[in-house]
Amino acid sequence: MRILFHAADGNPEPWLAELRTVFPDAHLRVWQEGDNGPADYALVWKPPLEMLQQRAGLKAVFNLGAGVDAILQFGDALPQGVPIVRLDDAGMGVQMAEYVTYAVLRYFRRFDEFEAQARAGQWRFLKPHDKQDFAVGILGLGVLGSRIAQALAHFGFRLNGWSRTPKDLPGVQCHAGAQGFDEFLRSSRVLVCALPLTGETAGLLNRDTLGKLPQHSYLINVARGAHLVEEDLLKLVQNEHIAGATLDVFQQEPLPPAHPFRQEPRITITPHMAALTLRGDSVRQIAGKISAMERGEPIAGVVDRTRGY
Amino acid sequence: MRILFHAADGNPEPWLAELRTVFPDAHLRVWQEGDNGPADYALVWKPPLEMLQQRAGLKAVFNLGAGVDAILQFGDALPQGVPIVRLDDAGMGVQMAEYVTYAVLRYFRRFDEFEAQARAGQWRFLKPHDKQDFAVGILGLGVLGSRIAQALAHFGFRLNGWSRTPKDLPGVQCHAGAQGFDEFLRSSRVLVCALPLTGETAGLLNRDTLGKLPQHSYLINVARGAHLVEEDLLKLVQNEHIAGATLDVFQQEPLPPAHPFRQEPRITITPHMAALTLRGDSVRQIAGKISAMERGEPIAGVVDRTRGY
Repeated sequence: MRILFHAADGNPEPWLAELRTVFPDAHLRVWQEGDNGPADYALVWKPPLEMLQQRAGLKAVFNLGAGVDAILQFGDALPQGVPIVRLDDAGMGVQMAEYVTYAVLRYFRRFDEFEAQARAGQWRFLKPHDKQDFAVGILGLGVLGSRIAQALAHFGFRLNGWSRTPKDLPGVQCHAGAQGFDEFLRSSRVLVCALPLTGETAGLLNRDTLGKLPQHSYLINVARGAHLVEEDLLKLVQNEHIAGATLDVFQQEPLPPAHPFRQEPRITITPHMAALTLRGDSVRQIAGKISAMERGEPIAGVVDRTRGY
Repeated sequence: MRILFHAADGNPEPWLAELRTVFPDAHLRVWQEGDNGPADYALVWKPPLEMLQQRAGLKAVFNLGAGVDAILQFGDALPQGVPIVRLDDAGMGVQMAEYVTYAVLRYFRRFDEFEAQARAGQWRFLKPHDKQDFAVGILGLGVLGSRIAQALAHFGFRLNGWSRTPKDLPGVQCHAGAQGFDEFLRSSRVLVCALPLTGETAGLLNRDTLGKLPQHSYLINVARGAHLVEEDLLKLVQNEHIAGATLDVFQQEPLPPAHPFRQEPRITITPHMAALTLRGDSVRQIAGKISAMERGEPIAGVVDRTRGY
């Protein structure tokens, strides 16, 4: 079996070492420009089009992350008929749940305000928010969105969910499609974006949609920077319709040092760390899927290119 | 039925309004200095000794909080034979779980460091901690400690617990008594104090005990300020044996503006807000217990004065 590897950032060696332990007999190679040699499987993170363009012979392309937007951006230039497979959770779900729970609790329990007071030498009680007024709305109810919902439910938060097609999650008031979007927004005091990035979801968080959230709502984006129209958020924070935001992803990453978000204390910035691909878990998951494919069995996580995830 | 009310801080009126709804026929009065008139039940928060001293005729004293240290400090001056009853949870458990989960995630996911980087205009990856190296040790496995453990277990943290007498909690490595204390400390990367304040537990967090935690451990205190020898913590943070702390309670509250903790960025301070007594939940709980007592039934939460909680 010939496995071709490419990861845009970082050192391939630890990945190859993990792969060797699960596929001791496979021929592993790191893709280099001009390599058009045969391969059975490709494992990729943000690959250049050149790596994939001529590869109709691949049995599958495995994406080393949950979001496949960096592959699907190549559209029809990708070889037809080759399945593109995303990671299912692989340790990312609990990380996302940790990140979002932290950000929700920070806003709900007013820790940011208490910290500012402490720095100013103050000791002052602040009236807590009430969970009855504090529904958290989760955009995207896939593996990651569902795991986030489960964590927040543990603390008794009221939950709304929105997905493209109708879903049914215990303890979540589920809305779906264009017709369910407004009600979802109007009833969510915190908005968590856990959507895949597709043609339909790019720019979905904008002046119009964020404006439908209740006054003093909060935004958490753990999906992709392109979901958010950044200048719209900034205006809504400045006019206090939105109380603040915790953002892990940005239109341009690394976020430039002069970006206006950095001057706005109500916007908390993290460097795209909400959920890291865990090498061991990911390689084991991909190995299981390759074995299943070799036995002719179906696998989970195959991307629907039309749908975009 | 005659109910006597006293709460050291705040306005009694909202409490009386709640009490009137559950005891429409009771005679309610707010204790005033010199009031030695008869009463059946007292509901108190940080009462003066004068209120309780002459009251052998009470059927019970209900404390409007979980910790009864402010009552038991009066020792033998309290009337003998009158049960002192603490609140069981009454909405405090989930608040404690929120507070501790927030503080644990903040340290575990390095949010404090990411925030400092963001303020400095940086965008830099920081290697995450590993849950295998990150056992959280909970001191005190009563209603509140158990609820904290349950929340952390949801995120897959390894858990140690310590209590005076042996306990058995699912998913928690339980230690007990003096002989179990060292091993508990040595195996806990984060120490959460949820103990009652008694003669045995005052000053329990000191140079000696905190020094037994692994290098770069973290302290979270949601119990009482008197559990901690504050100058010992400060030295251990300054010499980096302890990485930092999140403290909700202090030897002196409000924490004085010039207190050295305020100059130490690794020590996060909140103004005793981890778990507020929820009026509605508390009054309903106390009403249920009074009704049970009136029917001659036993009730939960009666304090053992020798044990101290």
